[in-house]
Amino acid sequence: MKKLIVGQSGGPTSVINGTLAGVYYGAKKQGYDKVYGMVNGIEGLLDERIIDLDDYFKDKNNLELLKRTPSSFLQTCRYKLESIEEHEEIYEKIFKILDKNSIDSFIYIGGNDSMDTIESLSDYALLKHKKQNFIGVPKTIDNDLPITDHCPGFGSACKYIATSIREIIQDNNCYGVTKPTVAIVEIMGRHAGWLTASSALCKDESCAGVDAIFLPEYPFDVKKFVKDIEELLKKKPSIVIAVSEGLKTTDNQYVCELTDSNLLVDSFGHKELTGCANVLCNILKTKLGVKTRPIIFSTLQRSAAHMASKTDLEEAYKCGLKGAELAYKGKSGKMVIMTRISDKPYKIKYDVFNDIHKIANVEKKIPLEWIDMKNNYVKQELIDYMRPLIQGEVKPIIKNGLPAHITLKK
Amino acid sequence: MKKLIVGQSGGPTSVINGTLAGVYYGAKKQGYDKVYGMVNGIEGLLDERIIDLDDYFKDKNNLELLKRTPSSFLQTCRYKLESIEEHEEIYEKIFKILDKNSIDSFIYIGGNDSMDTIESLSDYALLKHKKQNFIGVPKTIDNDLPITDHCPGFGSACKYIATSIREIIQDNNCYGVTKPTVAIVEIMGRHAGWLTASSALCKDESCAGVDAIFLPEYPFDVKKFVKDIEELLKKKPSIVIAVSEGLKTTDNQYVCELTDSNLLVDSFGHKELTGCANVLCNILKTKLGVKTRPIIFSTLQRSAAHMASKTDLEEAYKCGLKGAELAYKGKSGKMVIMTRISDKPYKIKYDVFNDIHKIANVEKKIPLEWIDMKNNYVKQELIDYMRPLIQGEVKPIIKNGLPAHITLKK
Repeated sequence: MKKLIVGQSGGPTSVINGTLAGVYYGAKKQGYDKVYGMVNGIEGLLDERIIDLDDYFKDKNNLELLKRTPSSFLQTCRYKLESIEEHEEIYEKIFKILDKNSIDSFIYIGGNDSMDTIESLSDYALLKHKKQNFIGVPKTIDNDLPITDHCPGFGSACKYIATSIREIIQDNNCYGVTKPTVAIVEIMGRHAGWLTASSALCKDESCAGVDAIFLPEYPFDVKKFVKDIEELLKKKPSIVIAVSEGLKTTDNQYVCELTDSNLLVDSFGHKELTGCANVLCNILKTKLGVKTRPIIFSTLQRSAAHMASKTDLEEAYKCGLKGAELAYKGKSGKMVIMTRISDKPYKIKYDVFNDIHKIANVEKKIPLEWIDMKNNYVKQELIDYMRPLIQGEVKPIIKNGLPAHITLKK
Repeated sequence: MKKLIVGQSGGPTSVINGTLAGVYYGAKKQGYDKVYGMVNGIEGLLDERIIDLDDYFKDKNNLELLKRTPSSFLQTCRYKLESIEEHEEIYEKIFKILDKNSIDSFIYIGGNDSMDTIESLSDYALLKHKKQNFIGVPKTIDNDLPITDHCPGFGSACKYIATSIREIIQDNNCYGVTKPTVAIVEIMGRHAGWLTASSALCKDESCAGVDAIFLPEYPFDVKKFVKDIEELLKKKPSIVIAVSEGLKTTDNQYVCELTDSNLLVDSFGHKELTGCANVLCNILKTKLGVKTRPIIFSTLQRSAAHMASKTDLEEAYKCGLKGAELAYKGKSGKMVIMTRISDKPYKIKYDVFNDIHKIANVEKKIPLEWIDMKNNYVKQELIDYMRPLIQGEVKPIIKNGLPAHITLKK
């Protein structure tokens, strides 16, 4: 009897369940007799919240539903394992639970922090001669994992963002010259601007595109911003710009913390930020007297499975398959990566990266040579890099007029 | 030579261009030789901003693109005609422009305010024995026009809202018991709660649905709200609620004006509201110490053509056809309406309503007997009324991985 357990960790995406589907199907195909899921990742595993995935996915229709269900089916956690030296008891507990359930392999689907978990557990297994092996499979809408060409989840978020911004551009233009309006769209990605940059995908013969893109990779100059928008307004009445939630000023201060009136203190005394887009809208209203509209995609950008990219979903699924294959081969402390072997036609190879220490906790930002700071835009190279990732649509399974999902039983 | 001019007015929708497509195609089919568009509605007409729609839509492919393009292709205005008694010169100017361009018929696609324009112009034509006739065709995401069963634009907004809230529910649940979270989704409709109520469509076997719905049709009791959410949190960790942007307290104060820290004053001294969802999130954080997340759909709910309802788009188109038919027959001061002649199967009749005075400036709210105030929800009758309106999907025309649109040439 070979047994595998799989978990999801960190922020969810539209296609992280596509990877789960790949792990489940791949593990079964490889020869695992049981595929378990840990609920709420490593945090739930510590409470032995383990389910048998056969209960859900023996039925192939449910596997198709799973691929189209956003967010983490197994639920998630943000749980950072302490170091082995300082908290060996946690490791002992985890391996006791794995042993008790006769688990051979452990797959974790996640981002940088989750790869840290894989690193620590595989190190511990090596140190203590444990039989279990540990494989990481990447996911993140932020696309900030190094080594892999890109991350599953990123393409679908790009497709949703670019589609929605196109619609916002149409909407924002509706009053034309009769009412100049600046819409500021705030996009996730606190340190890396990949998602914000995807707004550049809008532009083609049927859409004028966004008028400016502000990324967290370089300091945000408030005075230049106001001047640049003022110049844009002289040329056209409808301005739509994309900003990262994590913009920082030249004084290294978060833009979202700039105005006192935007700071709300909660019952625990924590400052709560109302968002970069709100602050920038207020600045433009005050300085230019123009009508503004902040639009914050919030969790929609990571969960809009109804607008998922087919390319992204297929890649997410195949990363899951690859993870199951590596696990069955007994590899440990490794991560599945995608290598782009051709641009035209776009072609990806599913690979294994041997040294997870080089991935865990490392953030990949946009290379500065792909950014056009002077014109508040991105270079064609970056657009060419992203374009293949949003190709193809995933037809939702519609019931009662709405996309159907699958959820954990109570 | 028979000539018709068409305009769009008020807030845009995902399918208002479907109605424009219907007017164009219908007018040509009826026998009009020319179909003009006024850019920015009556406001643009006063500046003689008139275009020949043949330049765009002789090509049938463009007509299909038009149906899938959100917002007002002809752009819009919020321009209220002064009364005939006080400002006859405006009427004289409008009719001079219509005469100069040999226009016989005038169709206005819009909501309550736009029907006021049709009312005034048709009254004036009658009074002054002018040859032109005036027809109104309804649109509004708010669904607040009386007489007609519902308005084109409403169904697609419902479909987008219900789809997105399903995805938000999945996302909000991702931390499960490890981090209880309340997401508050703010939905358009300042006085009428139809759109907010559409959140109830989420609930079925694949989705637990929203946990509470707060409508502007009755006073919002802040204390009861906090208590009800507290009770909900005892039962489950993930709470998603839908609120109307226009909620007012029992003291008749807008909820979005409740906290001073949410009031920002712009350069003209206008108070700007940061939104009802933000205020309610702050209240819950302060009173219950729970993690909250405001999500504001903003203009996405009225422009997400990629998730339009096929039923809605077809109805919007047919309302346009009907408008052209009425115009050609020489009717004036009338509005196209939809009458529901059967629920199962759902069947609509396209009709004419003769007395536009009964429609202009009247707001239709949700009947109180369709609201379950005690349980912060809506009754089944309201769900049954809305369900047929979200049926069917419209396949976008995809280019470069994104839905393609058509826009006015510069």
